[in-house]
Amino acid sequence: MEFLVTITQNWAALRRHPDLDQLVAAERQVGRALVEDGIIVRIWRLPGQRANIGIWRAADATELLALLDQLPLRPWLEAEVMALATHELEAS
Amino acid sequence: MEFLVTITQNWAALRRHPDLDQLVAAERQVGRALVEDGIIVRIWRLPGQRANIGIWRAADATELLALLDQLPLRPWLEAEVMALATHELEAS
Amino acid sequence: MEFLVTITQNWAALRRHPDLDQLVAAERQVGRALVEDGIIVRIWRLPGQRANIGIWRAADATELLALLDQLPLRPWLEAEVMALATHELEAS
Amino acid sequence: MEFLVTITQNWAALRRHPDLDQLVAAERQVGRALVEDGIIVRIWRLPGQRANIGIWRAADATELLALLDQLPLRPWLEAEVMALATHELEAS
Amino acid sequence: MEFLVTITQNWAALRRHPDLDQLVAAERQVGRALVEDGIIVRIWRLPGQRANIGIWRAADATELLALLDQLPLRPWLEAEVMALATHELEAS
Amino acid sequence: MEFLVTITQNWAALRRHPDLDQLVAAERQVGRALVEDGIIVRIWRLPGQRANIGIWRAADATELLALLDQLPLRPWLEAEVMALATHELEAS
Amino acid sequence: MEFLVTITQNWAALRRHPDLDQLVAAERQVGRALVEDGIIVRIWRLPGQRANIGIWRAADATELLALLDQLPLRPWLEAEVMALATHELEAS
Amino acid sequence: MEFLVTITQNWAALRRHPDLDQLVAAERQVGRALVEDGIIVRIWRLPGQRANIGIWRAADATELLALLDQLPLRPWLEAEVMALATHELEAS
Amino acid sequence: MEFLVTITQNWAALRRHPDLDQLVAAERQVGRALVEDGIIVRIWRLPGQRANIGIWRAADATELLALLDQLPLRPWLEAEVMALATHELEAS
Amino acid sequence: MEFLVTITQNWAALRRHPDLDQLVAAERQVGRALVEDGIIVRIWRLPGQRANIGIWRAADATELLALLDQLPLRPWLEAEVMALATHELEAS
Repeated sequence: MEFLVTITQNWAALRRHPDLDQLVAAERQVGRALVEDGIIVRIWRLPGQRANIGIWRAADATELLALLDQLPLRPWLEAEVMALATHELEAS
Repeated sequence: MEFLVTITQNWAALRRHPDLDQLVAAERQVGRALVEDGIIVRIWRLPGQRANIGIWRAADATELLALLDQLPLRPWLEAEVMALATHELEAS
Repeated sequence: MEFLVTITQNWAALRRHPDLDQLVAAERQVGRALVEDGIIVRIWRLPGQRANIGIWRAADATELLALLDQLPLRPWLEAEVMALATHELEAS
Repeated sequence: MEFLVTITQNWAALRRHPDLDQLVAAERQVGRALVEDGIIVRIWRLPGQRANIGIWRAADATELLALLDQLPLRPWLEAEVMALATHELEAS
Repeated sequence: MEFLVTITQNWAALRRHPDLDQLVAAERQVGRALVEDGIIVRIWRLPGQRANIGIWRAADATELLALLDQLPLRPWLEAEVMALATHELEAS
Repeated sequence: MEFLVTITQNWAALRRHPDLDQLVAAERQVGRALVEDGIIVRIWRLPGQRANIGIWRAADATELLALLDQLPLRPWLEAEVMALATHELEAS
Repeated sequence: MEFLVTITQNWAALRRHPDLDQLVAAERQVGRALVEDGIIVRIWRLPGQRANIGIWRAADATELLALLDQLPLRPWLEAEVMALATHELEAS
Repeated sequence: MEFLVTITQNWAALRRHPDLDQLVAAERQVGRALVEDGIIVRIWRLPGQRANIGIWRAADATELLALLDQLPLRPWLEAEVMALATHELEAS
Repeated sequence: MEFLVTITQNWAALRRHPDLDQLVAAERQVGRALVEDGIIVRIWRLPGQRANIGIWRAADATELLALLDQLPLRPWLEAEVMALATHELEAS
Repeated sequence: MEFLVTITQNWAALRRHPDLDQLVAAERQVGRALVEDGIIVRIWRLPGQRANIGIWRAADATELLALLDQLPLRPWLEAEVMALATHELEAS
């Protein structure tokens, strides 16, 4: 099942963190693994905001929640989740 | 997987329908079947609005969409869907 | 009478609390008691947010308010309450 | 238990009704009975809108919903309901 | 003239105040006086929020503003005010 | 007491009225009387909308509501009302 | 360049159209061509609404607008468009 | 003085007008004149909506309102107006 | 040209300022000068909020912005500006 | 391709920065270069807010994002981006 996930960083709080560089590096590494594992199917940045929007693949909302909780920046992220249904133009 | 589904009737359009009584009766019958099949787990009316809120069980968003499309009043209903994840207080 | 209660944690403020672990443990214990007493009928996590949504049972809004005030994390929680009415599909 | 109920008339649809005068007269009669029975505790008009706001007394949301469904203008009314809890300044 | 006044506490800021207990006690005393003087006609708590909703009686908006400014917790309160008009069901 | 009143015309419904010209002429006449009587203290059009914003003087919300109900176009108008309090810069 | 496009059908107006079946068939044919041409990269239905969400590829907003104007159901569709920027996790 | 003006067409009502073609042609002619006269300084379409956004030049809001009232499609247009102030990067 | 200006104080930030009394006194002095110069035509307080609403007179938005920037409390104020057009009931 | 970009400063956070003057000077210098390079086509201040609105020219959203990231005040800015399509009144 696929979800549309919009993730916004609370940058005001995050940028004062003493270990910011390490956190961001860790976040990137986890992000790469999620892309390689086919969990993050597509991802884009939203111009003008510290936010990204992505297509995530998970068995259900419980698994998606566990995946999001793995992100090192999780405490500074707000995520909005929309459950997606198959469209007939893609089904075949 | 469970979903919180809020369904609002477009009563302004619906109440002028020539076959209103039949439609409502058919809706009730389908509703009962969904409850008996354990698809609608719980359902309540919202006081003050022509709306109900329910816990629906479906494999994923695609199946949920197909279930909602079975409702005879579907063309006059607006549904809002929220994907639910298991809470640790219920797990075990 | 049942209420739909959406509880959101003010995590930005809470996570810097010196006694965070104790508070969270106490919250869990109170949550378990509320589930065992049949006050919290069902509860789910909302993916992407530090929030849960639950069906609470209370005599009226005054009793519900007292129950919410028992939560150890209450000062860091925002709760939204919706009064629910019986649906004919469940009545019988 | 008391509820704060805001009722707005869909006047655009209502004013073209052939039996408007009779409907409005019937609404007033039901309104008076609800006031006399102590169900509508207080009621006000909101200046500038075809709306009123009132304090309603009912055992629970299910009973409140049944009371609102008695209003002859019900099909043209939208009601917003807020559950009220006792305040310590009034308790004693 | 009556007003519907919804008062929300900025609890995040208030709870760290060194003289919190004294402030709350003073607030309660002023609240009691307003009830006894018939200025606060009715008042309720809103479940789930640090907020109350009340019917206030004042000559006009200027007097209401002066009454609200008397509250010891005023700097931490946000108030929303709605001017109420007499309803024909109460007039007689 | 003064109120800030924003009045928006439901032009989509109004423009198809058979007696539109007469209604608009009657509205203007009532408007002029309200200005001459000092009830409408100031009034402006909002560019881009079929709306005006004005300062109205009335004893209280009940009287304001009665004044608004005098407008011939009342059934096609939506009015938003804000109660105004004296500012110290004007008091003297 | 990619865009996130959310398309909602005004079904209330559309369903009364005498040539509805032909319109829907034509819409599907154009949709298939857009998918085959790689313009619609991905597309999903949103459960509960007569809406879909898709990733569209176009040189710029002017070309996207022209593509959307080709849809046979265009007069009954409302589209929301978000410009997407490449994310570093996909760049390489 | 410049204004940012967002104009949205009420296409649902407009498209059923018997003289639609003539109205649209007249609108275009007036639009061209406004561009040639330097009143509409820049104008764009918004992808996905029947709307445009433009920079308009007028002495003040009263003149802008008169200019908008000249548009033949005015009864089917909703316009949102934002007053713009000179930015230091442009001043010189 | 006249503008409707709603100014809200960020009191949470302002009240901790070491020079609060001086700032407020300076603000009042500038406010009085603006009233005497006929720039602030009318001004009211909004009950329940730390906000005022006023009619300001300025050549255009650029001049209005410069006037607002003169306010000593400017860094703690949020202002909302609406451009007003002459109404026919006042013209003549 | 052109974008309408609304940029709002988080002045509450920014004004306490030790190097505020240098940051603002650097921002102005980058702004001037963007204007000279024809990237910022037009720019205005919004009266009443610490915000500007501008027409930006960029190949696509990815380039626009990179341009916005060059602004020295970027960490304290929130930007809203709207993709613009050519209007027929300007085409030719």
